[in-house]
Amino acid sequence: MHSEFELITRYFTPDPPGLDAGVSLGVGDDCTLLAPTAGQRLAVSVDTSVAGVHFPEAAPAAAIGHRALAVSLSDLAAMGARARWCLMSLTLPAADDGPWFAEFARGFHALCDATGTTLVGGDVTRGELAIGVTVMGEVPPEQALTRGGARPGDVLAVTGALGGGAGGLALWQRGERDLAHPLLARYLHPQPRLAAGLALRGLASAAIDVSDGLLADLGHVLEGSGVGAELTPEALPLAEGLVAALGEASAREAALHGGDDYELLVAVPPAHLATARGRLAERGLALTEIGRVVDTPGIRGVVLAGERGWQHFQPGGAPSGGAPPGGAS
Amino acid sequence: MHSEFELITRYFTPDPPGLDAGVSLGVGDDCTLLAPTAGQRLAVSVDTSVAGVHFPEAAPAAAIGHRALAVSLSDLAAMGARARWCLMSLTLPAADDGPWFAEFARGFHALCDATGTTLVGGDVTRGELAIGVTVMGEVPPEQALTRGGARPGDVLAVTGALGGGAGGLALWQRGERDLAHPLLARYLHPQPRLAAGLALRGLASAAIDVSDGLLADLGHVLEGSGVGAELTPEALPLAEGLVAALGEASAREAALHGGDDYELLVAVPPAHLATARGRLAERGLALTEIGRVVDTPGIRGVVLAGERGWQHFQPGGAPSGGAPPGGAS
Repeated sequence: MHSEFELITRYFTPDPPGLDAGVSLGVGDDCTLLAPTAGQRLAVSVDTSVAGVHFPEAAPAAAIGHRALAVSLSDLAAMGARARWCLMSLTLPAADDGPWFAEFARGFHALCDATGTTLVGGDVTRGELAIGVTVMGEVPPEQALTRGGARPGDVLAVTGALGGGAGGLALWQRGERDLAHPLLARYLHPQPRLAAGLALRGLASAAIDVSDGLLADLGHVLEGSGVGAELTPEALPLAEGLVAALGEASAREAALHGGDDYELLVAVPPAHLATARGRLAERGLALTEIGRVVDTPGIRGVVLAGERGWQHFQPGGAPSGGAPPGGAS
Repeated sequence: MHSEFELITRYFTPDPPGLDAGVSLGVGDDCTLLAPTAGQRLAVSVDTSVAGVHFPEAAPAAAIGHRALAVSLSDLAAMGARARWCLMSLTLPAADDGPWFAEFARGFHALCDATGTTLVGGDVTRGELAIGVTVMGEVPPEQALTRGGARPGDVLAVTGALGGGAGGLALWQRGERDLAHPLLARYLHPQPRLAAGLALRGLASAAIDVSDGLLADLGHVLEGSGVGAELTPEALPLAEGLVAALGEASAREAALHGGDDYELLVAVPPAHLATARGRLAERGLALTEIGRVVDTPGIRGVVLAGERGWQHFQPGGAPSGGAPPGGAS
């Protein structure tokens, strides 16, 4: 624990967290001491965001802070875990960039506040801008949403809308800088679906967050569960403004293959679907049916073309066409 | 959780850890699920090691892997925590450096094995070589060794020997490459004092690991505890080979100011000293008395000179000379 980070943490959290936040000894000692909830599993994950790789270096500093935390919290959401704590490894190019850092911290801290996540440690090093965020959350042992629970007959559904991450990136690369544009907002300020993950405990049989692209992440679920899927691609909910920005064909490509959406893809037994949809509606979030889990491995309803994997989208589906070997993982 | 890291983790731990390692769901899902021990505090810390800053880029890959984990585990040792789990954020310059990575993993994994630490997650990004390691350990609430418990009359003592980190770095910079040299071994393969931390539970009133240099870290304890210290600098245990390599004066400078020793500096009530020393002796480790905790803030026994802080060392001490403002923090 570096002293420079103690200052930063104080900047982030002027009021030291206490036992109500599960923190029995805060930043400033060799370790932080946390009080996990008895009987719960501790869900942990780490994601590192690198400038120029995972986000544009010229993105607004507040968005960089928000996004670095959001992509890690999205993994907690996908487990149905409640967010509790995080640690940050910050690599900064220069020591004297106060205004940038203040904005960065504001974006990070605002998402901490909004999600009930407490920053409990970190360090600062010098180098190319990169932010590693370790997140810790809690979930009852029997209620964790894994990738391995999908069963034939389950409905496949996604929260929110797809393609916004890829669409926003495309707009950014074209020079669009209006942060109020819905696609840029989706790309720069992704919303981890923590509330949805909690609401789907006991209802969904499997879940994953859509970070690599819907088909790739669906492939992970199918592989983990030993099943296949029939997709209804025309049912994919498209992010607001996506068709206007990219055109219909590219919009659907973005929804199928684009990454960085951070929605949840879930498998839900039909008997639970209405309840699941109702709970998410109460939270202002759509849950859209996009297919079914089937016995036979692979994905039906889309066509595989060429060596790059899933290339072309056929709105009508092609049941006999495109199941990739091994379930599109 | 990136799929590339799943492969790496499998490389590291070919046998998936199970519930005996407190892992109820291993790497390969959105999060890993851990089973913390009921009634214990979870001690967490993160440290990032950057090539060219925290270690020489040309250091042996196995040493880089070992060292990156060791510096984080040292923080658990200083809390008296038992090491349980770790996550790694690895930034690698190139994707195809297989032999380097195999050695790196061997060094990291060997220290995991030796300390009972299970790698439970991580990610890999491309960029300048850097390794961020988040560690998690456990300690009973009342037995954590903080920086804030030192009381006047306590003995100040250090485990092992000092100056080896700075001495080893000096040798490396002079071109010494014999890894069997005791100072290079100290610098490249620091040993986190986890067993000492466990043995000192219930005996030490305060502890810190010597990462920034003895005086700097002593300052942290004094500040945390609201006390001062009288040092007996001639009592400092010097690392094997240090005087021969650096000469007497620089050796003592290295012991006082050098960083990267990763020994424990502890405050121990006199009534517990013999027991503490006996327990460490059973583990093959010396515990050397180097001073006393006193009421009056500051550090006596060494002389402060110039603006850079603690500069010069006087073997005979200078009780009236050098208490810095605010306790040498």
